[in-house]
Amino acid sequence: MNSFIYNIPTKVYFGENQLGNLGKELTRFGKRVLLTYGGGSIKRNGLYDRVITELRSAEMEIFELSGIEPNPRIDSVRDGVKICKEQGIDVLLAVGGGSTIDATKFMAAGACVEHDAWEFFGANAKPIERALPIVTILTLAATGSEMDTGGVISNLETGDKLGRLAQPLLPKVSFLDPTLTYSVSKYQTACGAADIMSHIIEVYFNTQKDLYMLDCMMEGLLKTVVKYAPVAIQEPNNYEARANLMWASSWAINGFINGGKRKAWSCHPMEHELSALYDITHGLGLAILTPRWMKYCLDPTTVDKFVQYGVNVFGIDSKQDKMTIAEESIRQTELFFFETLGLHRTFSEVGIKCEDFELMAQKACRYGDIKGFKTLTQEDVVRIYKMCL
Amino acid sequence: MNSFIYNIPTKVYFGENQLGNLGKELTRFGKRVLLTYGGGSIKRNGLYDRVITELRSAEMEIFELSGIEPNPRIDSVRDGVKICKEQGIDVLLAVGGGSTIDATKFMAAGACVEHDAWEFFGANAKPIERALPIVTILTLAATGSEMDTGGVISNLETGDKLGRLAQPLLPKVSFLDPTLTYSVSKYQTACGAADIMSHIIEVYFNTQKDLYMLDCMMEGLLKTVVKYAPVAIQEPNNYEARANLMWASSWAINGFINGGKRKAWSCHPMEHELSALYDITHGLGLAILTPRWMKYCLDPTTVDKFVQYGVNVFGIDSKQDKMTIAEESIRQTELFFFETLGLHRTFSEVGIKCEDFELMAQKACRYGDIKGFKTLTQEDVVRIYKMCL
Repeated sequence: MNSFIYNIPTKVYFGENQLGNLGKELTRFGKRVLLTYGGGSIKRNGLYDRVITELRSAEMEIFELSGIEPNPRIDSVRDGVKICKEQGIDVLLAVGGGSTIDATKFMAAGACVEHDAWEFFGANAKPIERALPIVTILTLAATGSEMDTGGVISNLETGDKLGRLAQPLLPKVSFLDPTLTYSVSKYQTACGAADIMSHIIEVYFNTQKDLYMLDCMMEGLLKTVVKYAPVAIQEPNNYEARANLMWASSWAINGFINGGKRKAWSCHPMEHELSALYDITHGLGLAILTPRWMKYCLDPTTVDKFVQYGVNVFGIDSKQDKMTIAEESIRQTELFFFETLGLHRTFSEVGIKCEDFELMAQKACRYGDIKGFKTLTQEDVVRIYKMCL
Repeated sequence: MNSFIYNIPTKVYFGENQLGNLGKELTRFGKRVLLTYGGGSIKRNGLYDRVITELRSAEMEIFELSGIEPNPRIDSVRDGVKICKEQGIDVLLAVGGGSTIDATKFMAAGACVEHDAWEFFGANAKPIERALPIVTILTLAATGSEMDTGGVISNLETGDKLGRLAQPLLPKVSFLDPTLTYSVSKYQTACGAADIMSHIIEVYFNTQKDLYMLDCMMEGLLKTVVKYAPVAIQEPNNYEARANLMWASSWAINGFINGGKRKAWSCHPMEHELSALYDITHGLGLAILTPRWMKYCLDPTTVDKFVQYGVNVFGIDSKQDKMTIAEESIRQTELFFFETLGLHRTFSEVGIKCEDFELMAQKACRYGDIKGFKTLTQEDVVRIYKMCL
């Protein structure tokens, strides 16, 4: 059992009608705010106006950067850095889902250095020692970026999609209002649920011994997603379902469930290459990959973890043979992603072609084998991609 | 479902061999440290020397206050306040269990005001707007004071034992090394486990609708205590057991599991009067009270919560009649406290006398009825006390 440091000081306002606290929290950091958002849905649903009203009553000077894309790009980050530097921004306010928040994190860090923000990524990445303060208003339950230290940015020139973790990227304050996710489409709700599930599965399936308590927490989070994602898809305005998914999304990846686990994640690096090359939704790629990765990993040395998962998350009868329970647990995972959530089942359905597998596998293993639940070589990754066809 | 603010910025170093970070963390706040501890067990087991070595290599000026008692008293708090003021203390380092940490919290707050520290308690309590920074090294898994905003102090003159919550009391940094609890006696380990269980039960048994996710978390924490408390009692040096209990103790009460629940706690106010008058161990008082309180509360309107508890925590067969499951869940709770943990079962065994019930009930209801899972009047409290005889 490894030691660890727990350090998640993000303050969270959870629930409806908390935006009245926005001005108070932002002005702790200064008066000049850069408001970042995506394609403008917040203008259509009235959130933009509510935010502007709060900022004005706090007498803030507002600068804006809109148009941050899904799978956010380094170009957007560069645009934000430029505004921060030129305008002497004090605090960044990201309004959106993980893409907007991720991009905003690297604007905040980029504003504190002289070099280009892309140098925060890759094998010889520059350190992130400081960042301007970040506040978020979450509109999509998925990535957990609102309460974690990470972000993922795409570079269309190099074809790379790379992640980075650093403590200064942690938002200072996040507003989680479940009603802001009422307008999230069925498809995006499903992809978000798959993303949350995957964040937990990446940690839960681990050969390193760790705290039983944290396994219980993860099973609780997984059960929460399994219970409420279908409700949110059927009844988009169901507060209970949206609230459970929203808070689960934060806790799936804020670091709490990790404890001292140090094994690498598996499906995320394989997926990042899909969305880097094809720009598909991250959660969809994860949903297609995860059950195939599970099948690839299942053997007598790993079967116990699948049994624990199947019994405690899906309530499979524990009296059966271990391998039977394990296989059933994977079948239940498939049923959840492809039937309950209604996501596409194969690469073929979403247009991912086998001629790209070698290149994508090579990039997924750019830092060497993926040392996760089972160590995956480049050849293993190609085999798992083939299982997804 | 209520809204809530989540705000637990305590940084935690969890695991063995983390004390090397102590100097670095303390000197962020200054050079003059007040080291507080209890009866001197830390001198016998070598922890005192390790701490002093770290403080000296960080070139800190060390002031000390020892002798903080179990059920800590306002007199100790006053002594600490005096040192803080006279010596211009920058940061307080509490080394011990909940008693030492609780007392240290109010020293830190008392150092920032002119009035007497007892005025932080009671019906007309003074506000706690500031406190000196507090760092803790935990040696007993029980109260959760290492990661929460509260503390409980006794006043022998008035016979009161009163609690207080305030955000400035939250420790900045806490060191949780499970090996430091190896020397905790079987009896204190058992009392600590009962205290942790009670903190969860006080929130879990609640008629207010809240997040299913948080109920899952609470069930996971309860299962963790049920699984590992007996192991720690049988094998005091079992790292896995001590680590699970230690981290569960923090999460049982740091505020995370509360969500938006606003109902009062029930067993804690009833127990505080026992330990105020008889100076018994808090966890023991809770163990005796909890199953009786459960019996007192069980009826057709509350049975569902007991069923959920019995099935999800103790694995009771869910196909039985509801009331049967509920009664079995209370029997399992009794078995756990009185057989597995080996704690005393009745007030008579620990010398608590029925002639004090009226006075204790009156004090437990000093602010009115206890508006918890079921509202308890002073008469209800007397009846529950009588069930404990």
